[in-house]
Amino acid sequence: MSGPPRGAETRPVHEALAATRLVDHHCHGVVTDALDRQGFESLLTEGAAWPGISPFDSPVGVAVRRHCAPLLDLPRHASPEDYLARRAELGVREVDRRFLTAAGTDVLCVDTGHLPERLSTPAQLAEAAGGTAYEVVRLESVAEAVAARGVTARSYADGFRAAALEAVGRTGVVAVKSVAAYRTGFDLDPARPTEQEVTRAAGEWLARGGRLADPVLVRHLLWTAVDLGLPLQLHTGFGDSDIRMHRVDPTLLTDWLHLTAGTVPVLLLHCWPYQRQAAYLAAVFEQVYLDVGLTLHHVGPARSRAILAEALEITPFRKLLYSSDAYGLAEFHLLGALSFRQGLGALLQERVDADELSLPDALRVAAWTSGDNARRLYGLPAPAPSHQAGATERPPSPESMI
Amino acid sequence: MSGPPRGAETRPVHEALAATRLVDHHCHGVVTDALDRQGFESLLTEGAAWPGISPFDSPVGVAVRRHCAPLLDLPRHASPEDYLARRAELGVREVDRRFLTAAGTDVLCVDTGHLPERLSTPAQLAEAAGGTAYEVVRLESVAEAVAARGVTARSYADGFRAAALEAVGRTGVVAVKSVAAYRTGFDLDPARPTEQEVTRAAGEWLARGGRLADPVLVRHLLWTAVDLGLPLQLHTGFGDSDIRMHRVDPTLLTDWLHLTAGTVPVLLLHCWPYQRQAAYLAAVFEQVYLDVGLTLHHVGPARSRAILAEALEITPFRKLLYSSDAYGLAEFHLLGALSFRQGLGALLQERVDADELSLPDALRVAAWTSGDNARRLYGLPAPAPSHQAGATERPPSPESMI
Amino acid sequence: MSGPPRGAETRPVHEALAATRLVDHHCHGVVTDALDRQGFESLLTEGAAWPGISPFDSPVGVAVRRHCAPLLDLPRHASPEDYLARRAELGVREVDRRFLTAAGTDVLCVDTGHLPERLSTPAQLAEAAGGTAYEVVRLESVAEAVAARGVTARSYADGFRAAALEAVGRTGVVAVKSVAAYRTGFDLDPARPTEQEVTRAAGEWLARGGRLADPVLVRHLLWTAVDLGLPLQLHTGFGDSDIRMHRVDPTLLTDWLHLTAGTVPVLLLHCWPYQRQAAYLAAVFEQVYLDVGLTLHHVGPARSRAILAEALEITPFRKLLYSSDAYGLAEFHLLGALSFRQGLGALLQERVDADELSLPDALRVAAWTSGDNARRLYGLPAPAPSHQAGATERPPSPESMI
Repeated sequence: MSGPPRGAETRPVHEALAATRLVDHHCHGVVTDALDRQGFESLLTEGAAWPGISPFDSPVGVAVRRHCAPLLDLPRHASPEDYLARRAELGVREVDRRFLTAAGTDVLCVDTGHLPERLSTPAQLAEAAGGTAYEVVRLESVAEAVAARGVTARSYADGFRAAALEAVGRTGVVAVKSVAAYRTGFDLDPARPTEQEVTRAAGEWLARGGRLADPVLVRHLLWTAVDLGLPLQLHTGFGDSDIRMHRVDPTLLTDWLHLTAGTVPVLLLHCWPYQRQAAYLAAVFEQVYLDVGLTLHHVGPARSRAILAEALEITPFRKLLYSSDAYGLAEFHLLGALSFRQGLGALLQERVDADELSLPDALRVAAWTSGDNARRLYGLPAPAPSHQAGATERPPSPESMI
Repeated sequence: MSGPPRGAETRPVHEALAATRLVDHHCHGVVTDALDRQGFESLLTEGAAWPGISPFDSPVGVAVRRHCAPLLDLPRHASPEDYLARRAELGVREVDRRFLTAAGTDVLCVDTGHLPERLSTPAQLAEAAGGTAYEVVRLESVAEAVAARGVTARSYADGFRAAALEAVGRTGVVAVKSVAAYRTGFDLDPARPTEQEVTRAAGEWLARGGRLADPVLVRHLLWTAVDLGLPLQLHTGFGDSDIRMHRVDPTLLTDWLHLTAGTVPVLLLHCWPYQRQAAYLAAVFEQVYLDVGLTLHHVGPARSRAILAEALEITPFRKLLYSSDAYGLAEFHLLGALSFRQGLGALLQERVDADELSLPDALRVAAWTSGDNARRLYGLPAPAPSHQAGATERPPSPESMI
Repeated sequence: MSGPPRGAETRPVHEALAATRLVDHHCHGVVTDALDRQGFESLLTEGAAWPGISPFDSPVGVAVRRHCAPLLDLPRHASPEDYLARRAELGVREVDRRFLTAAGTDVLCVDTGHLPERLSTPAQLAEAAGGTAYEVVRLESVAEAVAARGVTARSYADGFRAAALEAVGRTGVVAVKSVAAYRTGFDLDPARPTEQEVTRAAGEWLARGGRLADPVLVRHLLWTAVDLGLPLQLHTGFGDSDIRMHRVDPTLLTDWLHLTAGTVPVLLLHCWPYQRQAAYLAAVFEQVYLDVGLTLHHVGPARSRAILAEALEITPFRKLLYSSDAYGLAEFHLLGALSFRQGLGALLQERVDADELSLPDALRVAAWTSGDNARRLYGLPAPAPSHQAGATERPPSPESMI
């Protein structure tokens, strides 16, 4: 079976996961302006909206029509036209509220470093979701802002460090993130670069301009992350065409993980198609954790179980986290949560049914991966009692710490 | 379930796929001479016929005995001895006719570049299949023919281009193909080589002789393909022991795909075990398409669904094509078609049963991948009306455009 | 289904596999001292025992509690505390006897090269298992012993060769093994190094000390293995954090396999997550065989079928072997055997049920992979008649050839 069997929603693991409010440890805001068809379709895909090939004709498009349409009062599998018309009719705020509420997310850790001007703020996201938002600081954005402000090659390292320290000192920041995967990949010299190397590389970058993509500066960024002391999220695997997939196998980081053992937790985000490689690292390095975000909403519930099953083959149950990596569309917040709940629920329930796993163990694994692991790692407060009790009623009135 | 459940043939997606006449966008001819056991076994494997290890004792051997034997009037799972005896008794022409007819292929795009003297021509293949054949020009064969005819280093580039233009100008040619995967792998400098580089490399190759395997000339071949303007098929992944598998991950082509965006469609053939990497490229590059040919008959219906499921995790439904990559044995034309129909049928029907996909959507995906995508891409005519109606009767009288 | 359905134990393939005494062609001894919780947990994982993350909270920990607890007279899914208390109460000898007997292993090929002083000898292991033990000589340990004894750079090659010849001349030695994967990975120059290269590299190593990890000496070791003429086992893929996973893709060995074709059999051990790459090599190189040991007990019966299914997609059925790669804990001898039997049984029975495979063929594949392939490859004697008859009674009185 690719998806859970019908009637599965009455089974105990599915029930527990349905009632659990999730910690989404890596997501983004949603676009605050109204979207026309082209705007919506371009957000629906990691590719682009190509002539003659609708992004709706894809696994994620099918999942949106199946699982999101009913929340807009449409029948399952509604047509793209009907879907977009109804979406426009309801308006962005109402659409976002419906999906974010239905996602059942208690905590959102929001990466604010990619085109924040188009997106809702963490506070707005938390309000719509009826949860609490924290912030994840994207270090490349910090470095690029330092460069944009004007800095000399010689003062780049100090300037970046100061800006990063300031950024992570803001209220609500719980982690930093790097998109080294997009810039150089992971096939880097693992050693901390010297001051001279950084100054030389910074001089070249500042003269050249553009994104931070110099291998020395990317290494310097990763080592600066180590100094900051916060958990470090690393984009891994699947993304848009800027990725060179063969250079983002996370096991390319092995030497660097040896050098940084005992320092900060490293969270491998998304990972597909390298979920097994990420699982290996999580099994042998104390500091490594993983999720299969992004993939979850792209493949939908039809394949989330299969991918979670690979990710969990050898991963210690304390090492898997949930993220949606939703970006731009509130649909992705919902689909990520749904794919995680249904995929993990089916996987665990099946093992319970085969007596490979006891029900109490399955419920512990569900609770850990859906929230407890993230709460422990980021030092987040325990959920409010009504959430722990697995309340299925509407969440309490929206509030955000930010 | 690894294969479709019994009784599955009565379900709508399976029925539709069973009634659909396929477009096999990449295959080869069949051996026209009678084959003894050694000859048959050596074609049955991508390895060789080794002492003490019969190629029949493999997934493809089991699939032949299970699915091909009944078409030779033998019981399912007939012994290799009975199978070969009956095959010889019927004779090559009758055997080929039975398998090619049963494959239900409407269009065959035939790579004529590998040992064509042993194989049936596209016209013969089309006649036996009751379909229409088109030709795929293998560019390495064109280049090697130019070298064999005698050419100077300085005139190689022009001579190759002229010969390629002439080849693709022949009636019925719809695509070109490269086996760069076999020659250098994909870890190539993505840039178009300069004239001087090509002349120098051609001089060395012409002096040395042998197959075209120089990295500069392989790059030049790929860029010449871009100039020709036809869809470019690229062998990817699984093949014989000439492959260096770690050098044929298709994501090694990412830089080249960026440079050639907006030019020719690129069809990644076979792809296993890199079907997820190929799917990523198809999801983020407009010009990239894929199939899981070759694998289909090697793994048989027992695993085709699993591999198609990985290939389709994120692939836009307009981007997957069907090919058998059958070579030498008509059994492979049948097995490829059967594995595709059963694997895709099981995958889609299961999603329909789980209400993850609507039946009309499932039927559209089946129609697209089994033929419409290829027809659109290669500019092939629409199928005759009786085929569109899903006729299950014998195909009309054999005809070929070649 | 991730595991076999309940009631599956009454089906013929499962029954046959349950009654088959296995050949475990690669395993290790078990720790002979009593283990406290920390000692047990550190053996339970390829990582380490980390504060706050119990190795019991992992797929292998769950499998131990599910499948091993009942053999210690505890309920299924017993708590770690109860499990460890009962294990201590029974004592190491009784615990080992129970698990090794229950594993139903007829022949154990034991790698004696890693910390043998902590572990039971092959003879002790055979006695506890009620089977016969053979020895596998780890060549890196031989080389390091030569270096430790004192040798000059110039005499290293001869000294190593003499020591290796002596080691493989011992009674009961059936194979050699290399852990090149741990030392350099497989991205090596495939050519046999020259005498001068070896002398120079040996000089540097002897001066530097430490483990044998020089690329020239690792190549020399692999070529020495070829000269020895015995089957060569190669650790591949999953292991502890010394592995650089991206350098142990077995297809990196392709050039070396071409150069050594026609010499010794090469057994790719474990392979995960490269089981498909290993299968490709087994399909195209006569001398290549594979197993999915180590993985089997780490993933447990819940996922062994899925991994075996990938390993068997294209692997000739004469090319897959069984190993547990159990190390330290007798639990792993049991879990490896159980995961293999249940995973392979489910996979084959399902194909029989779908009529993709005949029952006699399924039983042959089961017999080949569970023992016959290894017996043929290592030249082991046929099993005693009662075993061939599939006796399910307790094995005969313990005996060992060593």
